[in-house]
Amino acid sequence: MQLDRFTHRLAAGVGLAGAALLTVSMLAQEVRPPAIRFTTEEAFDAASVPAYAGKHDEVYKHIEANIQGHVSELQRWVRQPSVSAQNRGIAEMAKLLADDLRTLGFKEVAIVPTSGHPGVFGFYDAGMPRTLLVYMMYDVQPEETGWQTPAFDGTLKDTELGRVLMARGATNQKGPERAFLNALDSIIKVQGKLPVNLLVVAEGEEELGSPNYSEVIEKYEARLRKADGVFFPLNAQDQTGAVSLPLGVKGNLSIELEASGGVRGGPTRAEIHSSLQAIVDAPAWRLTQALASLVSADGNTILVPGYYDQIRQPSPEEERLVNGVVRGSSPAREEAMRKGIGVDRFIDGLSGRDLFARWLFTTTMNINGIWAGYTGEGMKTILPHVARARIDSRLVPNQTPDQQLDLIRKHLAAKGFSDVRVTKLAGYAPAQTSVETPIVRAAIGVFNKHGVTPTVMPRLAGSAPYYIFTDRLKLPMVMGGMGHGSGAHAPNEYIVIEPSTGSKVAGLAQIEKWYVDFLHAFGTMN
Amino acid sequence: MQLDRFTHRLAAGVGLAGAALLTVSMLAQEVRPPAIRFTTEEAFDAASVPAYAGKHDEVYKHIEANIQGHVSELQRWVRQPSVSAQNRGIAEMAKLLADDLRTLGFKEVAIVPTSGHPGVFGFYDAGMPRTLLVYMMYDVQPEETGWQTPAFDGTLKDTELGRVLMARGATNQKGPERAFLNALDSIIKVQGKLPVNLLVVAEGEEELGSPNYSEVIEKYEARLRKADGVFFPLNAQDQTGAVSLPLGVKGNLSIELEASGGVRGGPTRAEIHSSLQAIVDAPAWRLTQALASLVSADGNTILVPGYYDQIRQPSPEEERLVNGVVRGSSPAREEAMRKGIGVDRFIDGLSGRDLFARWLFTTTMNINGIWAGYTGEGMKTILPHVARARIDSRLVPNQTPDQQLDLIRKHLAAKGFSDVRVTKLAGYAPAQTSVETPIVRAAIGVFNKHGVTPTVMPRLAGSAPYYIFTDRLKLPMVMGGMGHGSGAHAPNEYIVIEPSTGSKVAGLAQIEKWYVDFLHAFGTMN
Repeated sequence: MQLDRFTHRLAAGVGLAGAALLTVSMLAQEVRPPAIRFTTEEAFDAASVPAYAGKHDEVYKHIEANIQGHVSELQRWVRQPSVSAQNRGIAEMAKLLADDLRTLGFKEVAIVPTSGHPGVFGFYDAGMPRTLLVYMMYDVQPEETGWQTPAFDGTLKDTELGRVLMARGATNQKGPERAFLNALDSIIKVQGKLPVNLLVVAEGEEELGSPNYSEVIEKYEARLRKADGVFFPLNAQDQTGAVSLPLGVKGNLSIELEASGGVRGGPTRAEIHSSLQAIVDAPAWRLTQALASLVSADGNTILVPGYYDQIRQPSPEEERLVNGVVRGSSPAREEAMRKGIGVDRFIDGLSGRDLFARWLFTTTMNINGIWAGYTGEGMKTILPHVARARIDSRLVPNQTPDQQLDLIRKHLAAKGFSDVRVTKLAGYAPAQTSVETPIVRAAIGVFNKHGVTPTVMPRLAGSAPYYIFTDRLKLPMVMGGMGHGSGAHAPNEYIVIEPSTGSKVAGLAQIEKWYVDFLHAFGTMN
Repeated sequence: MQLDRFTHRLAAGVGLAGAALLTVSMLAQEVRPPAIRFTTEEAFDAASVPAYAGKHDEVYKHIEANIQGHVSELQRWVRQPSVSAQNRGIAEMAKLLADDLRTLGFKEVAIVPTSGHPGVFGFYDAGMPRTLLVYMMYDVQPEETGWQTPAFDGTLKDTELGRVLMARGATNQKGPERAFLNALDSIIKVQGKLPVNLLVVAEGEEELGSPNYSEVIEKYEARLRKADGVFFPLNAQDQTGAVSLPLGVKGNLSIELEASGGVRGGPTRAEIHSSLQAIVDAPAWRLTQALASLVSADGNTILVPGYYDQIRQPSPEEERLVNGVVRGSSPAREEAMRKGIGVDRFIDGLSGRDLFARWLFTTTMNINGIWAGYTGEGMKTILPHVARARIDSRLVPNQTPDQQLDLIRKHLAAKGFSDVRVTKLAGYAPAQTSVETPIVRAAIGVFNKHGVTPTVMPRLAGSAPYYIFTDRLKLPMVMGGMGHGSGAHAPNEYIVIEPSTGSKVAGLAQIEKWYVDFLHAFGTMN
C-alpha cells in the first residue's frame, strides 16, 4: 500500500523523551512554521480501554483445525499475479476476489468497471444492526530483482522469525486480506452467519495512487454512507510484536514544476551547446531559482506565504495521544529509529515530544525528483531546454490540496516565476478518526484482549486517500490487526505464518482470531 | 571535436547591427558582470590582407588527376572505427595514422603511450627554415541511432548539397585531416618534398576532453617549442560557403556539486519515504539552495564574489575584429541565427554588438545536468539521499580555472554550504592568437586567394584546451581550411566531396588545394 509501511513500523518504535515546546530554530525570511503547542501533560493510555470480553472458542477451534487450508488460501491469492502498473493478472484477480466473496455467502457481488482497473463490490446481509465497510486493494507492486524465491510462487520459508509466506502481496495486502476472509469463513461455518453486515469495496489501483477509486465509491455512495464504520485489515505488528494504531493519515499534494525555453528566452526545441549560455537564458537556472524560493536555505521552512495558515493546533485528544506515545518511548528507541532510517540527526537536532510533534503535525515540501540535461557518465556541455522537478507536500488538518496549490502558484507568480509551469499530479485531504469513536475503542479492546496494548497515534506521517471514508462518507475508520510482515515494495516480501518460539508476533491463526473478535466487538459496540 | 561545431557555424552567420555599449539590465544583488566597453568604431577588414600570390599548378593538377583515389583515402579512414569512449578500434586507428605518416615520408614516427589512449607523433624533416606543428585527433564520437547509412560504411551519397561522404568522422575530424595528408602526398609527389618541416602531434582522446594530451606534449616539449606555429585542419565553411576564422577559444571549468546526508542531517544510506521530510533534512533542497546562490534570479548574473574580476576589457585588436563581424552582418542574419538554435530571444533581448560582446567576452555559469531522486514515469514519494549537478563555466582572458574554482568554493562556504561537495571535473585556460601573427595573415591571404574572405573572430564561445599550444608552447595557432561538413556528434555526419552546381562550398579537391597553398604560404611567411 502507498501508506508508508516504514513510517508505520517506525511509529511503533518511536522513542521520544522530553516535553519542551517545539521551537523553530531556523527562522524563515518571511513566514514561520507554526509552533506546535502543548497545553497538557495528560497522556492517553490504551491499556485503560477494557479488553474485549467476548469468547468465540468454537470459531477459534475451527481456525486451528483448518489452519493448513487457510495457509493454502493465502498461497492461492499471492500466486495470482495482479500487478496494476503492468495490467498483469488484474482481471483474473478481480474475478478471483468476486468469486471468493460469493463462495462466502455474499449475495450481492459485482465487478465494477472504472476508467482504469475495475473495482469489486460485495454485500453480505447478516440481518444485523451494524454494518462494516471493508476497504480492500487487490493489486500489488511489480516484482523487483533480488528475490530469494520467485515472487509469485507463494513459497513457505523457514526464517529467524519462524515460518513465513514469501511472495509479492504476502503482507501488502493479500495476506491480511485473505486472512480476514478466512476469519469470515470460520465464523459462518461455525455460527451460520456473520455478527455484522459487510460491505466490501475493493480497488485494483491502490499501487497507482487510487486514481479511480472514487468512481467505485460513487456508484454505491448512498448505501456506503449508512455503514457504521470502515475497516482496513493489515499486519500492524512490528518485528518485536509491538502494535501501532494510527487514527489517520496526512493528505498529499503532488506537483511537477517545469521550466522550458519560450518567448521569455531559453532554447525551445532541444538542448543547445552550453557555450551559448552567454547569450541564451537557461531553463535549469529558472527551475533552480523557483524551487529555491519555496523554502529556507536549510530546506526546512516553507517560504510560500500562507502555507502554514490553515494548520490547526493539536486538539486536546491529539495532545493526550502524543503524550502517550512519548511516555512509552526512550532515548534508546529514538536512536534505534535514527539507525533504522540511516540518519545521523533529525532536523535541528529535534528529540522527544518536539520531534514527534514536528513529524505528525507539520506539513512538508519535499523534492521527490529533479532532472535536467545530461546525467550520465562523464560530461556533456549542453544547455538543457527543459528542467523538471516533482514535489510532494504532506498535508495536515485543515490544509486542502487545492488551497495549498493556489498558494504555491501565487507565490511563484509574485516572485516572477510565472514562466515556470506548475502541474498538479495528485492531491487529497488528510483523514482522521477520533480515539473516542466506538470502532476505535472496539479495536483497542480487542488488541488488549490479545495481550498487546497498541501505541495509538493521531495519524501517520504518510498519506492515503482515506478522506473518501472519513470526510466524504463521514465514517470512522480503523486500520489494523495482528500479524507481522515486511518487504512491501521490495524483494522478499513476507508475512509470518508460524512465529518462532518466544516471538511476540502473531501467527496466521491468531491474526484470524483477532479479526473474529473485532467483527463481534464491532457488532455489539454501543 | 569538443569545440562547438555549431557555435562555429553560428559565428559565421552572426548578424549584428547597432553599436550601443553593453548595458547589464539585470543587476545582481552583490556583484555585476563587467560592462564590455568599446572605444573605437574601426573595423578589421580581412579583405585588406593581400591574397596569397603563390602558384602551385602542378600540384593542383596532381590533385585533380588523383581525386578518386583521394576520396578512397578518406573512406579508408572513416571505415576504421575509433570510438574513444568505447575503446573501439583505437589501437588500429593509431597504427593506421602512424603507418600513413611513414608512407608519406615521415622519418620519425611513434605511437606514444599515455595514461589513456595513445598519442601519435611524427616528424617530417624537409630541411626547410619553417616548422609547422599539426594538431590532429584520430578518435570519434560513438554512433547514435538515426543513421541513414551505417556510420562506419563510408558511403558516398548524393544530396541537395552535392555528393557527400556520410560517415562518423567525415567532418569531425578524419575527413579534413586525411584531406590534409592527401595535400602533403600531392606536394611530395610533384615537388619531391614539403615546403615546411612538419611535427604531427595527434591524440585519441579528444572526444573525452583530451585528459592525457599533455603527456604526449610533455615527451616532445623542447622540440615542439621550436615550431613556428600550430595548425588544426578543419572544414570552416558553412552551408552557404561563408568562412569563419576564430583566433581563439574560451577556457573551461567543469565541476560537480553533490549534496548528501551526513552529520549535519539527511539520509545517509539510501532514499527514505518522503513523509520523513517533516523531521529529516533533504539533500535535494541543499543542492537547490547552493545552486541558486550562484546566480541571479534570471540565471544570467553570477553572484560569486570576484567571479568577474579577472575579465579584461577587449583589446583594441579585439574591438576592431568585433566591429568587423558586426559590419558584415544584418538583423535578418541575427533572426536566422535565433531560428537556427531554436531561441525566441537572446538574454535581455540583446542584439547587435551588445549581443556579440556578451557572447564572446563574458564568462558563463551553466547547469549541464542536475539529478536527484525518482525521475521516471509517475510518482515515487521519496526523500533522495543524494542530489547532484554538473556545471560548466566558460572562461575568458584572464580567468583561470583554479582561481574561479577557488572563488566558488569560498562563496559556498561563506553562504553556509560547506556541506555541499564541489569536485573539479576539468579545467583549462582560454587560448588566443593575434590577427597580426604571420600564420594568421598567411591563412587569411590563402582564403582571399580562394575567393572567400573570412569573418575573423577574436575567439569562439566554445572551449578547447589549446592553451597547451598558445600558453604552454607559446606558439600562434590557426584552425581552418575550406570545405563544409555537419553532423558532428549527431547522426548522418557528412563532408561535401563534390558540391552541387552553383554552390560556394569547396569540394575535396579545393579543400586539398587550400592546404597546399597554406603550407607554402606558411613556409615563406616573414
